[in-house]
Amino acid sequence: MSLKAALREFAAARDWDRFHLPKNLAMALIVEAAELVEHFQWLTPEESRNLDAAKRGEVADEIADVLLYLIRIADVLGIDPVDTAWGKMLKNAVKYPAPER
Amino acid sequence: MSLKAALREFAAARDWDRFHLPKNLAMALIVEAAELVEHFQWLTPEESRNLDAAKRGEVADEIADVLLYLIRIADVLGIDPVDTAWGKMLKNAVKYPAPER
Amino acid sequence: MSLKAALREFAAARDWDRFHLPKNLAMALIVEAAELVEHFQWLTPEESRNLDAAKRGEVADEIADVLLYLIRIADVLGIDPVDTAWGKMLKNAVKYPAPER
Amino acid sequence: MSLKAALREFAAARDWDRFHLPKNLAMALIVEAAELVEHFQWLTPEESRNLDAAKRGEVADEIADVLLYLIRIADVLGIDPVDTAWGKMLKNAVKYPAPER
Repeated sequence: MSLKAALREFAAARDWDRFHLPKNLAMALIVEAAELVEHFQWLTPEESRNLDAAKRGEVADEIADVLLYLIRIADVLGIDPVDTAWGKMLKNAVKYPAPER
Repeated sequence: MSLKAALREFAAARDWDRFHLPKNLAMALIVEAAELVEHFQWLTPEESRNLDAAKRGEVADEIADVLLYLIRIADVLGIDPVDTAWGKMLKNAVKYPAPER
Repeated sequence: MSLKAALREFAAARDWDRFHLPKNLAMALIVEAAELVEHFQWLTPEESRNLDAAKRGEVADEIADVLLYLIRIADVLGIDPVDTAWGKMLKNAVKYPAPER
Repeated sequence: MSLKAALREFAAARDWDRFHLPKNLAMALIVEAAELVEHFQWLTPEESRNLDAAKRGEVADEIADVLLYLIRIADVLGIDPVDTAWGKMLKNAVKYPAPER
């Protein structure tokens, strides 16, 4: 089963589809992104890559929350996020050419 | 090739690893999430699910940008976002039990 | 006493100036902004302007938190936010001319 | 004239009150907060407090944008943000007692 399908079932079983409009899901997504940011706000950049196990677990949970809302909003809009991300990689490769070595 | 591997190569080829610290990546992620939010800020919830093709393409690009930074921050932290998301689904199923039918 | 001066004293008394760098304060500010957004994410636009007293108090507290970090980051950067906001109003008046009546 | 009154006139002259619902204004506010964050995302904390004049001007404009939406959402909700911020300062003083010297 895909996360997309699991999220669909989850929302349907709770009658949440009426809340899961793209506008609302974009808000929920940025709220989760901010919970991720909150973990890092007072850390130095160096500290941010040396998290202890407890903090790392909390950060992983916030990353999961962002991913779940991202999959959900993409599904509601009929967008394939992985396909689109590959397209964006190509655009970025043109926009930011790698220096020659 | 996975998006994770492509992002690694992309960053390495541009010497961007020194910028790609979790604190910075969390900031970049929320900036992209806000660009997604911006598309919806003045729309009604109903309008937000009936985007025209041009707007839908722009929204898809923002979703892709969030996904790319999400994959990147998870990689830098050594977190598997899909595994963690499945774990989060289980926690949510306990936290928000579905009503019986 | 101004809020700016109170915030300065507050930070100094707790030895927080070393944390109150603009990068960190911008993160703290957006985290508070997201707590404001969270109150509205599942409401319809109409519901969002008819909050009950308890919810309205919580929203007011989030608005206050955003304001406090906004005053603080402006102070640390030596920016006068009200002066700059008046300048921005003028730019906006040019950018979005009012229709004639 | 206050910024609050100027913003009211500005919105009324453009018939924007129908868009200026708290839900939408909270979204606009976080979008501006993210534009502030964007300026700092790849800077070290130290670099973030030593901006050159051009960058500092751009940051000031983003701070102004956040302030304008903050004043606007507070006005639409009938909240006095400065009063509430003083109340929040008091709560914070209790929550985070200063160490004795």
